[in-house]
Amino acid sequence: MTTTLRERLLGAESDFLFYGITPPKLLTDEERVREIAGKQIARISRLNVDALILYDLQDESARNSQPRPFPFIQTLQPDVYSRNYLSQLDIPKIIYKSVGKYQPSEFADWVANADNDISVFVGSPSVNQQVNMSLRDAYRIKNESNPDMVLGGVVIPERHLVKGDEHLRLFGKIDNGCRFFVSQCVYSVNHSLDFLSDYYYASKEQNRRMVPIIFTLTPCGSVKSLEFLNWLGIDVPRWLANELKNTSDILSMSIDSCCQTANTIYTFCKEKSIPVGFNIESVAIRKEEIEASAELVRSVAAMMGRK
Amino acid sequence: MTTTLRERLLGAESDFLFYGITPPKLLTDEERVREIAGKQIARISRLNVDALILYDLQDESARNSQPRPFPFIQTLQPDVYSRNYLSQLDIPKIIYKSVGKYQPSEFADWVANADNDISVFVGSPSVNQQVNMSLRDAYRIKNESNPDMVLGGVVIPERHLVKGDEHLRLFGKIDNGCRFFVSQCVYSVNHSLDFLSDYYYASKEQNRRMVPIIFTLTPCGSVKSLEFLNWLGIDVPRWLANELKNTSDILSMSIDSCCQTANTIYTFCKEKSIPVGFNIESVAIRKEEIEASAELVRSVAAMMGRK
Repeated sequence: MTTTLRERLLGAESDFLFYGITPPKLLTDEERVREIAGKQIARISRLNVDALILYDLQDESARNSQPRPFPFIQTLQPDVYSRNYLSQLDIPKIIYKSVGKYQPSEFADWVANADNDISVFVGSPSVNQQVNMSLRDAYRIKNESNPDMVLGGVVIPERHLVKGDEHLRLFGKIDNGCRFFVSQCVYSVNHSLDFLSDYYYASKEQNRRMVPIIFTLTPCGSVKSLEFLNWLGIDVPRWLANELKNTSDILSMSIDSCCQTANTIYTFCKEKSIPVGFNIESVAIRKEEIEASAELVRSVAAMMGRK
Repeated sequence: MTTTLRERLLGAESDFLFYGITPPKLLTDEERVREIAGKQIARISRLNVDALILYDLQDESARNSQPRPFPFIQTLQPDVYSRNYLSQLDIPKIIYKSVGKYQPSEFADWVANADNDISVFVGSPSVNQQVNMSLRDAYRIKNESNPDMVLGGVVIPERHLVKGDEHLRLFGKIDNGCRFFVSQCVYSVNHSLDFLSDYYYASKEQNRRMVPIIFTLTPCGSVKSLEFLNWLGIDVPRWLANELKNTSDILSMSIDSCCQTANTIYTFCKEKSIPVGFNIESVAIRKEEIEASAELVRSVAAMMGRK
């Protein structure tokens, strides 16, 4: 009998491997969406990952007064895209919900009738952003109307650098029902270790069971993508940014860097029995970048000793 | 014909290995100083290092409003100790001079008559510290009265994190005659790589020859020593500090960490042909810590492939 992803998450097991994508743009015509979905199904089914994450993009321009390097474009809703176009892809889907976008009644309706059983709720990227609903409201609604849904949260190692309390923030979310966490894209391994270390020692001290932490890795294919990471608040160490800007093959160098990051985090977690996993994000559209993300999945799978 | 250390430094060669000590306390009686020196000579002559660094401690209490974890105690002057007690140790000595401690006339006299030919001038640790002489004055006096003395400077990767201009500061010191640099003790490898990367790319851009950068590594034998590193402004990553505080063998873990730091820096420098070296600092008095520094010398020597 195989253990389901749901059971593995609830059992706080380790060594997860996810793949993350953004749904097609909202105004893409139906035929083109089917074509994109067909290619994604073919590609992702070969990857041997435990789940597909579907992001729910929100306009984060309140996050940063600098202009966004890439324009924000609305996409299809991740659950709608998953249900209508990806049903042939026979792996669990993890649906992101940027809760601030929804009215409480609309959200309650979705939660009660959701056909996916694993979801990650995302709060507002900035206190300056106008929201319809807070993360706290979302947790309450979910716990009342669909307690069986397995809930994930977001962890941001960069926030730990600034505030030093990301592990306590996670404890609060765990108390609200979160059973796993997915990080923002990681390029600065030290921030992740800093967070993990505090998470580990505080869990021991408070006699808490640690839940899995899934670290997101994203290949970076251009200097403009690098600027976008920066805009999103992702810390790329200065030396690495210098190298990426000066190399003739930024994509290949960024994959090497992601692999090293994964390896360092994995080794650290294994020594401390922290349940861990990785999510390879493919948010780019260029063919080489999509192939690069598949290559990264294979490398990280091999590093974790997966068949 | 063997190349002297002086020639190797002036030739901007690589792979230096130094050992750094603090002279005995000023009020130690003569016999005890001879005893200490005898042990140091026996120990250091077995280490196969290129030079012995002798520090010139200064009271750095203006650096930090927090109480100093260890009291500041004056020591013998490094050149006096070297000349009177370490003459049997047949390796080059590098004499530190904390220039702010000296009157210009006294300093000029020392520079003109110095019997050592390699020295590192250190400026004030804080703008709040009262000084008799600035680094700029010291450079001028040295260049006027002893241009043949090989001059080193101090590099502080942590300062690069805050100001981002440590490489430019080095260029200024190189223009004033510095032919190599020795870092403050390094526990945060990313800051060192950040500095090295900017140093490398700016040197290429300005068509400057890079001079050797010697990174200082110090075993840490107790939680109090860790607090002292922190007091000195040395950044120990949070995760590493957690580990060091929680391990049953802090000394051995800190040596492992120093070796990894050395390896990462060395690999980075070799790929870019940055002349590099290491200085193993032994500032502790406990026997295990002194032995640990010798062990670290051997490990770093092996890592660099020295015979």
